[in-house]
Amino acid sequence: MNFARDNWAGATPEVMAALARANDGFAPAYGGDALTGRVKQLFAALFEREVEVWFTATGTASNSLGLAALSRPGGLIFCSSEAHIHVDEWGATEFQSGGMKLIPMPQADGKVSAADFATTLRRFPEGGRFGTPVALSLTNATECGTVYAPGEVAELAGMARERGLAVHMDGARFGNAVAALGASPAAATWQAGVDFLSFGGTKNGCWAAEAIVVFAPDKLGDLAARRQRAGQTLSKARFVAAQFEAYLTDGNWLRWAGHANLMAERLRAGLRASSRARLGWESTANEVFAVLSSESLGHIRAAGGSLHEWPVEALAAPLAEGEVLVRLVTSWATQADEVERFLSMV
Amino acid sequence: MNFARDNWAGATPEVMAALARANDGFAPAYGGDALTGRVKQLFAALFEREVEVWFTATGTASNSLGLAALSRPGGLIFCSSEAHIHVDEWGATEFQSGGMKLIPMPQADGKVSAADFATTLRRFPEGGRFGTPVALSLTNATECGTVYAPGEVAELAGMARERGLAVHMDGARFGNAVAALGASPAAATWQAGVDFLSFGGTKNGCWAAEAIVVFAPDKLGDLAARRQRAGQTLSKARFVAAQFEAYLTDGNWLRWAGHANLMAERLRAGLRASSRARLGWESTANEVFAVLSSESLGHIRAAGGSLHEWPVEALAAPLAEGEVLVRLVTSWATQADEVERFLSMV
Amino acid sequence: MNFARDNWAGATPEVMAALARANDGFAPAYGGDALTGRVKQLFAALFEREVEVWFTATGTASNSLGLAALSRPGGLIFCSSEAHIHVDEWGATEFQSGGMKLIPMPQADGKVSAADFATTLRRFPEGGRFGTPVALSLTNATECGTVYAPGEVAELAGMARERGLAVHMDGARFGNAVAALGASPAAATWQAGVDFLSFGGTKNGCWAAEAIVVFAPDKLGDLAARRQRAGQTLSKARFVAAQFEAYLTDGNWLRWAGHANLMAERLRAGLRASSRARLGWESTANEVFAVLSSESLGHIRAAGGSLHEWPVEALAAPLAEGEVLVRLVTSWATQADEVERFLSMV
Amino acid sequence: MNFARDNWAGATPEVMAALARANDGFAPAYGGDALTGRVKQLFAALFEREVEVWFTATGTASNSLGLAALSRPGGLIFCSSEAHIHVDEWGATEFQSGGMKLIPMPQADGKVSAADFATTLRRFPEGGRFGTPVALSLTNATECGTVYAPGEVAELAGMARERGLAVHMDGARFGNAVAALGASPAAATWQAGVDFLSFGGTKNGCWAAEAIVVFAPDKLGDLAARRQRAGQTLSKARFVAAQFEAYLTDGNWLRWAGHANLMAERLRAGLRASSRARLGWESTANEVFAVLSSESLGHIRAAGGSLHEWPVEALAAPLAEGEVLVRLVTSWATQADEVERFLSMV
Repeated sequence: MNFARDNWAGATPEVMAALARANDGFAPAYGGDALTGRVKQLFAALFEREVEVWFTATGTASNSLGLAALSRPGGLIFCSSEAHIHVDEWGATEFQSGGMKLIPMPQADGKVSAADFATTLRRFPEGGRFGTPVALSLTNATECGTVYAPGEVAELAGMARERGLAVHMDGARFGNAVAALGASPAAATWQAGVDFLSFGGTKNGCWAAEAIVVFAPDKLGDLAARRQRAGQTLSKARFVAAQFEAYLTDGNWLRWAGHANLMAERLRAGLRASSRARLGWESTANEVFAVLSSESLGHIRAAGGSLHEWPVEALAAPLAEGEVLVRLVTSWATQADEVERFLSMV
Repeated sequence: MNFARDNWAGATPEVMAALARANDGFAPAYGGDALTGRVKQLFAALFEREVEVWFTATGTASNSLGLAALSRPGGLIFCSSEAHIHVDEWGATEFQSGGMKLIPMPQADGKVSAADFATTLRRFPEGGRFGTPVALSLTNATECGTVYAPGEVAELAGMARERGLAVHMDGARFGNAVAALGASPAAATWQAGVDFLSFGGTKNGCWAAEAIVVFAPDKLGDLAARRQRAGQTLSKARFVAAQFEAYLTDGNWLRWAGHANLMAERLRAGLRASSRARLGWESTANEVFAVLSSESLGHIRAAGGSLHEWPVEALAAPLAEGEVLVRLVTSWATQADEVERFLSMV
Repeated sequence: MNFARDNWAGATPEVMAALARANDGFAPAYGGDALTGRVKQLFAALFEREVEVWFTATGTASNSLGLAALSRPGGLIFCSSEAHIHVDEWGATEFQSGGMKLIPMPQADGKVSAADFATTLRRFPEGGRFGTPVALSLTNATECGTVYAPGEVAELAGMARERGLAVHMDGARFGNAVAALGASPAAATWQAGVDFLSFGGTKNGCWAAEAIVVFAPDKLGDLAARRQRAGQTLSKARFVAAQFEAYLTDGNWLRWAGHANLMAERLRAGLRASSRARLGWESTANEVFAVLSSESLGHIRAAGGSLHEWPVEALAAPLAEGEVLVRLVTSWATQADEVERFLSMV
Repeated sequence: MNFARDNWAGATPEVMAALARANDGFAPAYGGDALTGRVKQLFAALFEREVEVWFTATGTASNSLGLAALSRPGGLIFCSSEAHIHVDEWGATEFQSGGMKLIPMPQADGKVSAADFATTLRRFPEGGRFGTPVALSLTNATECGTVYAPGEVAELAGMARERGLAVHMDGARFGNAVAALGASPAAATWQAGVDFLSFGGTKNGCWAAEAIVVFAPDKLGDLAARRQRAGQTLSKARFVAAQFEAYLTDGNWLRWAGHANLMAERLRAGLRASSRARLGWESTANEVFAVLSSESLGHIRAAGGSLHEWPVEALAAPLAEGEVLVRLVTSWATQADEVERFLSMV
């Protein structure tokens, strides 16, 4: 009953096989190898256009280096108050960017509304007291397991672009978002106004496969040099490339993410039907937020279940005495019988 | 005939096997897993004492984060004028440390002498015009393929410590140094006064396995937080741990490094005996610097040989017309017959 | 009718006279002169204890360098959502500190309550997801013209210290606060738990006289070096020292600040009594926030009055149609008849 | 006998008078005042073209902010090995620029030769191992009291521009250079290819008057925001403007600098003629480097003389036993009889 994090799972057999295939003889380092070249073509095909692809070691690296490439003194980045870049990355973007400021916006179930973004834009005019707006960062799937539809992204991105802001998408769980939406990767990103995407494979079946996918390279200055200086240029690049080769071949990534989403949906269905627990809020991707009794939680943990409590501030209504809010994360490796077992223990 | 870089080789079969073994079920992320714990014990055993071990994605990350943890405004770091941190990392240490300055020192065949270090220390008194000395950084094996003996490290480190400086060792090729020296890892590092070591596995048979090994944790502030903020905390830590497990088991790392050194020695022996080429200087580890005729170089490349030309400033005497200086790097994967073929083509 | 900013006023005659006196012959640069030495003694006498005093060029420099001296990776600084460091300094503290994050807290009329600070401390545990709390920063007098009493500072500072946080006071208008409180400078700062103070003279009768006054030098690392590196070490230090000599002699600073406060109080009294305008909220120091009709504002500006509109978000209740919120700032140079004229035009 | 530093002198009477004149009534802060506007016109007239002028508090601030505005990851700045930005500013440029690297070049008597710059440019190709060249920084007058003629600047700047580098001039003693050259400020700067100038008034008769004068504003990104974020925007800007008004009126600045140069020339003439001392090297501006006997130095200091010893590395030939190298700096305030007294004591 492993619902703690999607990165507690290992790598898929396909990824392991691709690594083994790639481990043949010598290949130029730092991305000059043929496999890295082929994988970049896979990305171009996936997004139906030319893209720049820069591998990194972690999602935090992708987010912070990409945003830092927009760096301006006094620069402001707008994001949800639950955004991973704001809440979980220990000031990575502030550091890499030489001190840009993240401006958290109100959110509901992880998503920022057009109305709240409009209010924020009015509060932060170009060259105002706070500084200069430079970017909007959206996470998809969000940190709350919800998903922005392409139209929602397009509305927010359109407002950002009108003000001259770049648009970033944190896609640590981009696969889960795309699998949930049924939209094309292109529709979910650049066609909706996204300038660059942190494309994450690690949480969805890879070992360590992350990339910054850039649709608007003219907006991001010296990204290659920033990556190099940050110690994010893996010398044996084919090791990342091999993972992405498996990831992007035959729609594997969507199959794995779809499985995770399905397992999450079964959890949600069970919790909706339960009289002893309930959903904290509705979600769509592979994160489920549930209100349990402390007692249930104790039983589950005693039985070896892994899952994390979640800050109750995220809930619209306060919990009753003896209730706890928990987060359940599914992955490519989640087994249906674990889900059943969990629900039976609730 | 692949002598371009040691990171053009892939991973050893042992590393691949360890990865496969580690890929079993769920494991806590961010280093909380059992395998990472066991590997830290392997490091402690290797160095015959308690150590802190922080995995990173690259050697540049290890060097720059470790040195940045010593950061002081106006801080100075002394290194060889050929040091990788100075010459090849695009200002990584300057960036991570908030602007510390690297002070390159004269070197001979990659090594700094005690006399030159003494002169430098006199030129840079504590609180002088330039700033405040904070660290000495040595590379072992050096960027020129030579090796510091434990006594040489101890002399330099002793001078540094007398002045209150921390001592860093860039061990991107630490395995090649230890294999060449026949000394214990402890003797080559903390017993000689080294405070922290960038311990590299990538160039010697791993995919991406680097660690900062800390002998004096009280000197390095907030290293874990720095690593996190830099996007260097790989979430599926067991993937790094598995590589190091294979690396450190049964002396594999020294066997692989020893093989690379042996192949380099055969190149050196052949070049010493050659009437049509010569060594640029004597080295001991897995890098060989040779003076060839441009004609030979052309033939070798035409036959598919990979190798890099090297800046001639490194040579004591100028080249003759039609000569070039090249670097040859061997690895765990270098075949003896490639060496023979190369020598025969010279 | 100059109510735009207190730094639209020039320097007092006493400051000009002190500059003229100090301009005699040669004196060591960078703070080694006798006058700077004497002025540091004046600071010690003023605060009734030993203090470190570091002159800077601006309040932004004092705030950001002092806070940066506490810098830790992932560090968090708590401040009011109206704090100058957050709202007006274009990321100075984020930049100087290498990316620390400011966490704005709710405030009422510029002041943070103990209850809100307690809630914030619970949300941000040591080593939590967001990072590591390192400091509390309070402004006195606040950006809203209100004043923290020593007991209020002591309560907040005590909570901060229990958590191991350093306590900073932004005293850009410290003179106005002390004059309003009638408390001793010692009581308002270190006796209440403040570790370091941005001590501002510029807004209160100097040309450019700012200092970081440090009560707990062991907490602030390398402040002198930070100041030097930031280009904040004025070479002809006696020019700053002379201003502070005039400032701190014969209680001049409190007389000037007291005058500014008195002029503000007359404005407040007149606005309280007015049927055509009202106070936005009650304040105590030299900033007055008033709700006027747009019509009045137009008349005043047409008559040469200088004053700024203020963001209405600061108000508890929304404005009526045709109303505006304005800020009025008085200084040592404000004339009583200007105040009368302003009130008569309202 | 004050020859320690030119910033041990105070401000000229003209500067004090201008400050008194400017201290009349209210004026907009942060540079919006009429006097600042007029002074910017004085700069435009001085340089015979439109310029951007940004006041700062110190020369270190001007240098580091200007160069930081060129910041690129992995960026390299070429300067003399004696350059103040490299030797005396505690990593200010490295810090402000987020870690750019200064590359010191060989120099003779403070000046870089075209041949040495050419060699350096070859060693550091665009995108090479070290990083990316972004700027050439020249000091005029140099740190060794010598002066670049416009033709010399033009030759170096031309080579820089061919490679796409920006050209900075550190003009902490620009007045001394222009007075010595007899060239126009325009000829000495932008007409010779200089893109921006750190224009110093402090060492030449002001209290604290420094400015970044920008000839190529399109090359320097967001300089105003950088200055603000660095706490270098003095709120009562008219206080700086007043100093520059006096400085630039009636050729005062060149008169003051000319006097300093003349006093230095008398020192040089006396030393050239002396049998008991000699010049370390020939200089032209207001810094004189002399070889004295330790005995003479002792006498002079015993008689109250202020002067600094200088690192002997700057000399072509080693000193004899009992000799010392000293630096003598003259200023607007140096008296002819002090010079005579000094020479008589040698």
